Amino acid sequence: MPKLILVRHGQSEWNEKNLFTGWVDVKLSAKGEEEAKRAGVLLKESGLKPDVLFTSRLTRAIHTANLALEEAGFAYIDVHRSWRLNERHYGALQGKDKAETLATYGEEQFKTWRRSFDVPPPVIDPKSEFAQTDDARYKDVDPNVLPQTESLKLVIDRMLPYWQDTIAKELLDGKTVIIAAHGNSLRALVKHLDNISDADIAGLNIPTGIPLVYELDQKLKPTKPSYYLDPEAAAAGAAAVAAQGKK
Amino acid sequence: MPKLILVRHGQSEWNEKNLFTGWVDVKLSAKGEEEAKRAGVLLKESGLKPDVLFTSRLTRAIHTANLALEEAGFAYIDVHRSWRLNERHYGALQGKDKAETLATYGEEQFKTWRRSFDVPPPVIDPKSEFAQTDDARYKDVDPNVLPQTESLKLVIDRMLPYWQDTIAKELLDGKTVIIAAHGNSLRALVKHLDNISDADIAGLNIPTGIPLVYELDQKLKPTKPSYYLDPEAAAAGAAAVAAQGKK
Repeated sequence: MPKLILVRHGQSEWNEKNLFTGWVDVKLSAKGEEEAKRAGVLLKESGLKPDVLFTSRLTRAIHTANLALEEAGFAYIDVHRSWRLNERHYGALQGKDKAETLATYGEEQFKTWRRSFDVPPPVIDPKSEFAQTDDARYKDVDPNVLPQTESLKLVIDRMLPYWQDTIAKELLDGKTVIIAAHGNSLRALVKHLDNISDADIAGLNIPTGIPLVYELDQKLKPTKPSYYLDPEAAAAGAAAVAAQGKK
Repeated sequence: MPKLILVRHGQSEWNEKNLFTGWVDVKLSAKGEEEAKRAGVLLKESGLKPDVLFTSRLTRAIHTANLALEEAGFAYIDVHRSWRLNERHYGALQGKDKAETLATYGEEQFKTWRRSFDVPPPVIDPKSEFAQTDDARYKDVDPNVLPQTESLKLVIDRMLPYWQDTIAKELLDGKTVIIAAHGNSLRALVKHLDNISDADIAGLNIPTGIPLVYELDQKLKPTKPSYYLDPEAAAAGAAAVAAQGKK
C-alpha cells in the first residue's frame, strides 16, 4: 500500500522576522532546526520506512529533510528535488514585512493576497534583490516557465504535473514517499488529495515540522483520513499559522 | 571544462574507536561534523560551483555532504546515491578493533588485509551483527552483486561501472560534480584518474574532509595535477591516515 509523508519545513530566519519569503532562499532558524529533528523523532517512533525523498529547491525544506532523515536513520534514501515543490512565489511582496504590508494595504487587500485562491500579488521586478533572476538553482529550467508571482491556483498548476509524472510513479511502485516542502506547495497537494474546494482551502493550515501521513490506494486516493504523527502539536501549530500576520 | 570534487567523509564514531568499519553504517563523530563544515568553508572560498552530488549509501558520507553543501550554500543541487561508492567491505574484520587485529594476526597479515591490492579479508558471516543482510539500504540491489568482503581491486571492479555509466555523463555534460565517499572508494577512483599502478596505490592516502579537485578534459583525463583546497592540512591529514593502526 503506497504511503505518503508530508513535512512542512520548520521555522525559517524570515518566518521569525515576519517577512514574506516565497522563493527567497533563507535558512532555518535554530527553532526550525529543532522542529526538523523533532519531525525525525516522530518519524522514527512511527515505524514508517521512507524509501524516497522529494524536496523543493529551497534550502529550508532541504535542510529540514536532511535533519529529520538523519535523526530517523534514513539519510541513505534516494532524493529528488524540483522547483515545482517550491513555496508559492510571492511576487513583489517577497522581502516585505507582513505587518507593514498589512498596515499599508489594509486588511482586505492583505487577506486577498495571502488567502484568495486565484489572485496573485503584483509581479516582482526582475532587478529586485529578492527576485531569482539568474539563480543557479533554476539554470536547467526554461526561464519562461518560472513564475514572477503566484496565487495558490498557480502553485497547483505547476505542482500537479510533478506529482502526476514523477512522485506518483514511486507511490504506484509501492514505495513510501516523503515530501519536504512548504506551506503552500503542500496545501496545493492536500487540496488535490482530499478534494478540497477552492473556497475551503483558505481555511486549511499546515503546521511546521509535524509529519502528515496519507495511506493511498492504487489510484492514489486516500483509503482513510490523513493523520499527523503528533495530532495535538499539529492542532496547536495549525492555529499558530492561522494567527500569523493577524496582529 | 568538467570539474570533479572528491570529499572523503570526516571522522566517524568508529574511526574514533579504531574499529574496522567498512559497510557498517556508523555516524560521524563531533570532530567529523566539524571536518565536514570545514570542507564546506573551503568549497565556498574556492569559488567552485557544484551542480550535482554523488554519495555512497552510508550515512557518514551523506552527512558529510549535507553539512558541507549547506555550509557552502549548495544544499539545493541534485543528489544521486549508490552502493557502488560505498567504503570497501571489510568482510569478517568489520566491527573488529584494529589494534587487536594487529596483535592477533601479526603485522604482515594485518598489512596485507589493509594495503594489499587484491587480497580480501575472510568473508563476513551473514548472521554477524556487522553484516548487511536484509539491509533496507540495498533492497533494490541484486543480492548476488553485494560483496561479503573486498580487496581494493574488488572495490575498483564495482565502482568503475558507476563512474563510467553515471558520473561520467554529468561531467561530459559540462557539470561540476562533487562526490562524497570513503577512503577506499575514492582511492579506487584516484587510481583510475591518475593511472596509478597496483603497487603504488598502497602508498596513497586521502585525508578526511579536504576537497580534492580534478579539472578534466572531454575524455575525462586530468588536464593538470589534482589539488587539495587546503594543501597543508591535506599533507598532515594524509600522514595521519598512513599512521593509522601503526601503534
